[in-house]
Amino acid sequence: MDLPHRLTSEVASITELPTEGKRFHDNRDAAEDEFRELRDELASWQRKLYAAGQHRVLILFQAMDAGGKDGTIRKVFRGVNPQGVRIHPFKQPSKVELAHDFLWRVHPVVPADGMISVFNRSHYEDVLVVRVDDLVPEAVWRRRYDQINQFEKLLVESGTTILKFYLHISPQEQRERFQDRIDDPEKHWKFSFEDLEKRKQWDSYMEAYTDALNRCNTSFAPWYVIPADQKWYRNLAVARVLVSHLRELNPAFPPAERDLSHVEIK
Amino acid sequence: MDLPHRLTSEVASITELPTEGKRFHDNRDAAEDEFRELRDELASWQRKLYAAGQHRVLILFQAMDAGGKDGTIRKVFRGVNPQGVRIHPFKQPSKVELAHDFLWRVHPVVPADGMISVFNRSHYEDVLVVRVDDLVPEAVWRRRYDQINQFEKLLVESGTTILKFYLHISPQEQRERFQDRIDDPEKHWKFSFEDLEKRKQWDSYMEAYTDALNRCNTSFAPWYVIPADQKWYRNLAVARVLVSHLRELNPAFPPAERDLSHVEIK
Repeated sequence: MDLPHRLTSEVASITELPTEGKRFHDNRDAAEDEFRELRDELASWQRKLYAAGQHRVLILFQAMDAGGKDGTIRKVFRGVNPQGVRIHPFKQPSKVELAHDFLWRVHPVVPADGMISVFNRSHYEDVLVVRVDDLVPEAVWRRRYDQINQFEKLLVESGTTILKFYLHISPQEQRERFQDRIDDPEKHWKFSFEDLEKRKQWDSYMEAYTDALNRCNTSFAPWYVIPADQKWYRNLAVARVLVSHLRELNPAFPPAERDLSHVEIK
Repeated sequence: MDLPHRLTSEVASITELPTEGKRFHDNRDAAEDEFRELRDELASWQRKLYAAGQHRVLILFQAMDAGGKDGTIRKVFRGVNPQGVRIHPFKQPSKVELAHDFLWRVHPVVPADGMISVFNRSHYEDVLVVRVDDLVPEAVWRRRYDQINQFEKLLVESGTTILKFYLHISPQEQRERFQDRIDDPEKHWKFSFEDLEKRKQWDSYMEAYTDALNRCNTSFAPWYVIPADQKWYRNLAVARVLVSHLRELNPAFPPAERDLSHVEIK
């Protein structure tokens, strides 16, 4: 499968990378059809992954506010067996969490055998908002790129597949989505005045993202930068990456513990 | 909505209660149509529950092996936003878990505000398999009925809705489902010789279930005994109970933190 959005080399700034999915696909209907097929295929692989209990899959999403993390998770994982997929949203850390190293709250929720863990935000916030808002000294957050790489390496060496997605939207698209939240009373709860403050820091975030993606784009845990202005393309691009990796893992229903041919049930 | 399977009085033995859903519904196609509608309604309530962040919902499933716990969870919760629903399977306790009281591993995974927790097996195993297999002295498991009631009361008094389902199948139905696991290579992984041993203890399990359901059928956390021999009826009956309670909770999308009418996005 064509996976054009894998980050393959350092970028001067992620703002050079496309946010428009329609540059990569000119037929929305066809994209939606393909997406639905891939979603079914994903659900079918997930059942085998769970049954086999041999692989662990960690999928993480980062994005600016309104970048589509929730929507992507809802659309892509619709249809999987919820027993084998855990979504972990990472919110502002609690006092207890802050009293530990920044990976302390992450480690307990990495996937077990047969499981898929989906991170909505992640340990990358500790080199993003933390950096932009000066929450720790620079010397501290600078060390974290390497600490993240070592942590992810441990997981991969222990049998985990890690797939990292940055959902890339333009500031214009963010404005439209914020406006939509203002216009639709059912979306008022999603609108936060804090998000407007963060929007003013757009350039600083783009710098922080550029560094995070460049420095933590390892061969064992690569970043995918998904053009996310068009939701239909974003969903398709994410599904393609997931299915492509699951095909490679190729989990299968395991055999019986022993020969079942003569079992009689009384 | 008609909820005929709520346990309303003590039963001499749960084996007197029906396992055949077709005694309650004579039209499978209509049942499946209604189920799909209720499933969509459930998904829509769940989004509001999550957005409102005011209620907590704990749903638990108990059943004999092959009773349909996994299938029910997969079918009923297909379509919900996985971010707001957590499935917790309770397996054989670990050494660390056994070194604590039996509710120690349960408490951390009860639902938070806005969340639905689904238990696949639960603390009830500690008065079921534990009793049947004599894993602790009788004086210990006898105390647990009251301990469970007090624990569930705490949760309810703290804003949790608790819905408990026993999926009731006949021994004949279990035999057919085991046979199906033997006949279908894709289901071999689900077949366990240990399950055949447990099948021999059927009567002891029915006794243990009867006591558990009678003693822990409180007004604040009632049991539903779902006739589960026909999967199509089982799914419908469970969905009816869930949707009926969510309609009563009636969560709504919350308003904006403050007036949004003059907000301008720069």
